[in-house]
Order: sequence, then structure tokens, then C-alpha cells
Amino acid sequence: MMSHDVAMDLSTAFTAKFGVRHPIALAPMGGSAGGALAAAVSRAGGFGMLGGGGGDPEWLAREVPAVAGTGKPWGIGFLTWAIDVAAVECALSHGPGAVMLSFGDPSPYTERVRQAGVPLILQVTDLDEARRAVDLGADVIVAQGTEGGGHGALRGRSTLPFVPTVVDLVAPTPVLAAGGIADGRGVAAALVLGAAGALIGTRFQATTEALVDPAVRKALLEARGQDTERSTLLDIARDSPWPATYSARTLGHPYLDRWRGREDELAADAQARRDYQEDVARGAIPALPVWAGEAVDLITDLPSAEDLVRGMATEACDALARAGRR
Amino acid sequence: MMSHDVAMDLSTAFTAKFGVRHPIALAPMGGSAGGALAAAVSRAGGFGMLGGGGGDPEWLAREVPAVAGTGKPWGIGFLTWAIDVAAVECALSHGPGAVMLSFGDPSPYTERVRQAGVPLILQVTDLDEARRAVDLGADVIVAQGTEGGGHGALRGRSTLPFVPTVVDLVAPTPVLAAGGIADGRGVAAALVLGAAGALIGTRFQATTEALVDPAVRKALLEARGQDTERSTLLDIARDSPWPATYSARTLGHPYLDRWRGREDELAADAQARRDYQEDVARGAIPALPVWAGEAVDLITDLPSAEDLVRGMATEACDALARAGRR
Ligand SMILES: Cc1cc2nc3c(=O)[nH]c(=O)nc-3n(C[C@H](O)[C@H](O)[C@H](O)COP(=O)(O)O)c2cc1C
Ligand SMILES: Cc1cc2nc3c(=O)[nH]c(=O)nc-3n(C[C@H](O)[C@H](O)[C@H](O)COP(=O)(O)O)c2cc1C
Repeated sequence: MMSHDVAMDLSTAFTAKFGVRHPIALAPMGGSAGGALAAAVSRAGGFGMLGGGGGDPEWLAREVPAVAGTGKPWGIGFLTWAIDVAAVECALSHGPGAVMLSFGDPSPYTERVRQAGVPLILQVTDLDEARRAVDLGADVIVAQGTEGGGHGALRGRSTLPFVPTVVDLVAPTPVLAAGGIADGRGVAAALVLGAAGALIGTRFQATTEALVDPAVRKALLEARGQDTERSTLLDIARDSPWPATYSARTLGHPYLDRWRGREDELAADAQARRDYQEDVARGAIPALPVWAGEAVDLITDLPSAEDLVRGMATEACDALARAGRR
Repeated sequence: MMSHDVAMDLSTAFTAKFGVRHPIALAPMGGSAGGALAAAVSRAGGFGMLGGGGGDPEWLAREVPAVAGTGKPWGIGFLTWAIDVAAVECALSHGPGAVMLSFGDPSPYTERVRQAGVPLILQVTDLDEARRAVDLGADVIVAQGTEGGGHGALRGRSTLPFVPTVVDLVAPTPVLAAGGIADGRGVAAALVLGAAGALIGTRFQATTEALVDPAVRKALLEARGQDTERSTLLDIARDSPWPATYSARTLGHPYLDRWRGREDELAADAQARRDYQEDVARGAIPALPVWAGEAVDLITDLPSAEDLVRGMATEACDALARAGRR
């Protein structure tokens, strides 16, 4: 008979396809998931993904060597609405183990990735996007819930009911669960919901390898999930080019308190947006919003990402082994 | 070595405390969780709870016998803001295996329940309520996520990250996860997140024993999670006495489309609220909103509640046994 021995590795369609030891992927967080963080995750047996954002070739050239040098599987993620074919070509030239595309219409890029023989990961936030991802030949689909940190659907779905629905819809395509996962219990939940692993963002910001300001790490350690808020407001205030169909979950912010519910007014008020820039310049507000998900409640230390991946994998095995065995 | 054999029962602090076979509780849905439904759940080895709502003694007297007659453990749930001590006394006189209180300040009633030696279950929607529930001596705490059907916090938390946070906060008090659970995978997720079981509402509305209009069952079968919406609007439109600090998740509704974002205006517009009553009277809109959670996506049949409980328990064991074993 089989058993969930704590020392045993968790094997899924995702770990098998990518040749990784643990069903844990680093979310390709634009800017903050750099080479050191991705390398740490891959070295520990997870799947590290560089946060390629809008596809800056210099950033990629600088960050790739650290993770490519591990000799372990790794990938590159982009914001679909922000890139062009050249960015995808550039990414492919670095020889990643996967290209991940999120937020926007991936159809101009999917064929190119497939031609290169590189696995394609598409992140989706609703069932229409999930169906379309199958049609576009996604090798892995990330189902993102609204409790996640950073950008996502304006009116998103919660991870727990969304993931099994996507799993059923796209079977047999493997699914990664994203949004609200910050420890091994969440990884285990992803697996029993039918996902082949978890894609984790916020939790990895609070590690020694993340490319973030120490003040951000400290804020994540102290924040509570109920302090996070999903809104379009800060993108408007900072004149960000994000399409209006996406919001972002962040920690609390003075501009949220000042403008909540008056997004249209803010968009029309050029002076208010200049004020935002001035407030940043004089240090009254942080240079960037602190993107964070509801799972910040579960962040109680600032470990290395390597220790974090190993610890989560062990805790996930443990959670599976103990469940229902009082 | 231990193993998750599919035939094995799941044993938790909840099943042990209440002497039930499966870690599955019926949410005490006001009106629709009547004697037949609670009895079916309890007979199948779950924990059936009557939806006592605001504490109508005649409704209770009518519905109790069916579930009490099973000889199995069962309970009664109330809306805390809507009851008085007499309702609690009346409930206790029926000899329930638990009294559950949700939404509002339970402190006027908790001591009376404890004096009677009856286990007290408190449903919470944030960490302050969870802490307070411990102080009030709750025997079990239900952690409700915002994806759940029916009423809940105006600005709620998602179940997946909320449950482990509550588990850590209130340990060793057993926690039930509520919100977005509609199959055995969700029950298994509750357990690996550290909960001692799942409390399920929406899914049980779509069973043969629920006290609902056949049109409601049909609507649940056809609805998608993305069609559900959390709002205060329908409570305002129907002049409901629900406190303004709670919203409800329902299926789509013409009044949502007509008044969304203009709740204050609707509250001030007596004629609009008379229109609502008239629309109900002439059958243009249903008599009641269809309260439903995001997990409606997972409702694909209308089984008996007995078959549903047994099926979910088996599926939960199966999900635990398969996770991480490709
Ligand atoms: C700081 C931050 C930046 C992010 N940037 C990106 C990004 O550039 N591209 C992307 O696909 N997803 C991005 N995400 C979203 C993640 O892919 C993922 O859906 C999310 O982090 C999962 O929820 P969690 O934060 O609760 O783990 C970002 C998330 C965070 C927290
Ligand atoms: C139709 C309906 C009526 C409800 N009525 C009550 C109630 O009277 N008292 C209560 O404590 N909870 C009530 N709830 C909320 C449940 O206790 C529970 O939190 C919720 O159903 C869990 O989410 P789920 O619907 O996704 O299973 C109700 C839920 C529904 C769907």
C-alpha cells in the first residue's frame, strides 16, 4: 500500500514534465523575481521563473546567467499586453525551460514558443481564458485567484473553488494553482484540488534573494491579509500603462484612502497624478505600491528562498499525511 | 505505516467531538436547511444543522423531529443579530448536539449555551471575530471565506489563505472551513489547510431534500461562479433588516444590474423599493434572491443529500490518497 511518508517527494504531472523535485513554481514577478531568487528556487528543487515584465532585454541578459548557471530547470515570464515578438525571441535565445505569458491576448506569441519546442505556460483568471489557453496549446495552465498579490482580473475568482473548476475544464492539461498560497498547507491544498502544483508570488518577496527594498520585506512581515486591497486606483495614480481590465492587490496606501471609489475622477485629474509623482519624489509615499496577496498573514519570517522551498515541500507532505488521521 | 485507503474514514477533532463519521457539516441555511435536509446529512454520517434563521419557534418545532428522529448528532444555527435569549432557550429545549451562531455579537447568548452543556459553534469572517470567538469559549470556529454563498462580511477574506490563518490563531480550537467547498476535493483541501472539516451551504441547496423552489435548484445547476456577486443591494431593495455591515453573494439579478454602485440612492428611494415588491408580486423577479457561492461551477447534478455526503467523503479520501503520486 502507498503512503504519504514525510520524506517522500511529491510527484505530479508538473514535476514530471519539468523534471523538478517539488511541485512549487516561483511566480515570474516583474522585476523582483530576478536571477538570484529564481536560482535559489530552482536549486532547492522548485521551478524558478524570471519576472521578465515587459521584456527589457538588458534586464534579462543580466538576470539569466545566475539561474541558467544552476543547471536546473527554469523559465521566463512576461506580461502579455506589454511585449512584442522580439521580447519572446530574446527570451527563447536564452534557452529557458518554459515561457509563461500572463494578462492579455497570448495568441501572437504562442506559435513562436511552440515552434521553439519550449513548454508554454499561460496564466488565466476566468473560464473563458482557460478554454482559450487549451485552444492555444498551453502545456501548463496557471489558475489565478483574486486573493493573489499583484495584478489580476478586475473581478476575479477565489482560488479554492476556481482551481478544481479549471482542472475539470482543461483536463488533461496540468494546472498550477496561484493566489493565496504561502506555506506547505497551501501547496497540499493545490494538489488535493486537482492541481499539479502551486505558483507562488507574495511569499517569495519575503525572502533574502528577492529583488526588493528591505522596507518591502519588512512591510510584508508586518502586514495582515485584511490590509490588502484589490484596486485599479494606484495604476491610475502612477500613470501606469496597465490595461483598465486589470486591478492589483497591494498593501494599504494613502492614495487608496484618499481616492477610493473616485477612480474616474482621478483618471481625469492630471494635477492629482502629478501630486502622486511629487509625493514619491519627496519620499511621502513609496516609489512603488507594495504588491501583496491575502496570504501575507502566513508570512512570519524572512528565510532564504532555498530553505523556504524545502520547508514548504516538507510541510505539504506532512499536511497530506496528517489530514483526516487524528 | 499509515495510508489513505479510500475505504478509510477521515478522522478529525470535529468528527471525534461530535461523534460523526465524516468531517462534513451542513451550513444552517435559514429556511432551506430544514428537517429533511439536516436528517439526510446526519444519516449519511455528516453533521446536519437546521437553519433556524431569526429563531421562529414554530419553524423549529416543525423541522426538529425529522432530524432528531435519526438518532444521529445534529445542530441548530441562528443569525446572531436577529435573535433573542428566548430563541436560544427554545433551541436548547429541543436538545440539539450544537448551537451555531453567525453574524453579529454572540456574547449575550454564549454563556447560556455553555451552561446547558451544549457545544457552541461560532462562524467568523475576520481575525478579530476569530480571536473573540476563542474568548467567548467557542468549541468550534467556522472560518467563512468571501466566495461562499449567502451572507458574509462586506469585505471578506478568501477561504484558502483565511483558513490556515484562523487555524494558527485559534489553536487548539477546531476550525471548519466554509465558502467555496462543493465536492470532496474541497473537503480534502479544508483538511490539509489544517481545518477539522468543511461546512457546506450552496452545494446542499442543489439536493432533493433542500427546502427550495425547484427553480432555485435548476438555477444552481446552470449557473457559473462568475455569475455570482457579493452585494448589499438586494437586501436594501427588499427592505431586509440585515445590518449594513453584511453583504450577500447571490446569482445575477435585474436589480443588481439596475442599481449596482448606487446603493445609497436605492436606500433613499422608497418608490424603487415599492417597485421591487411589485415586481415580486407580478412574478417579474423571484420572490427571493438566489443565494449562491462561487462553487456553483462544481454543481453538475441534483443528488440526494445522503448520496452527496457519502460521495464527497469518498472523493476526499481519494483526493488525499492521490495527491502528489503521479
Ligand atoms: C510583486 C508581484 C509582482 C507580480 N508580477 C507579475 C508579473 O510580472 N507577471 C505575472 O505573470 N504575474 C505577476 N504576479 C502575479 C503572480 O504571477 C501570481 O499570480 C500571484 O503572485 C499569486 O498569488 P500570491 O501572491 O498570493 O502567491 C506578481 C505578483 C506579485 C506579488
Ligand atoms: C442559501 C444560503 C442561506 C444561508 N443562510 C445562513 C444562515 O441562516 N445562517 C448562517 O449561519 N449561515 C448561512 N449561510 C452561510 C453558510 O453558513 C456558509 O457560510 C456558506 O454557505 C459557505 O459557503 P458555500 O455556500 O460556498 O458552501 C447561508 C448560505 C446560503 C447559500
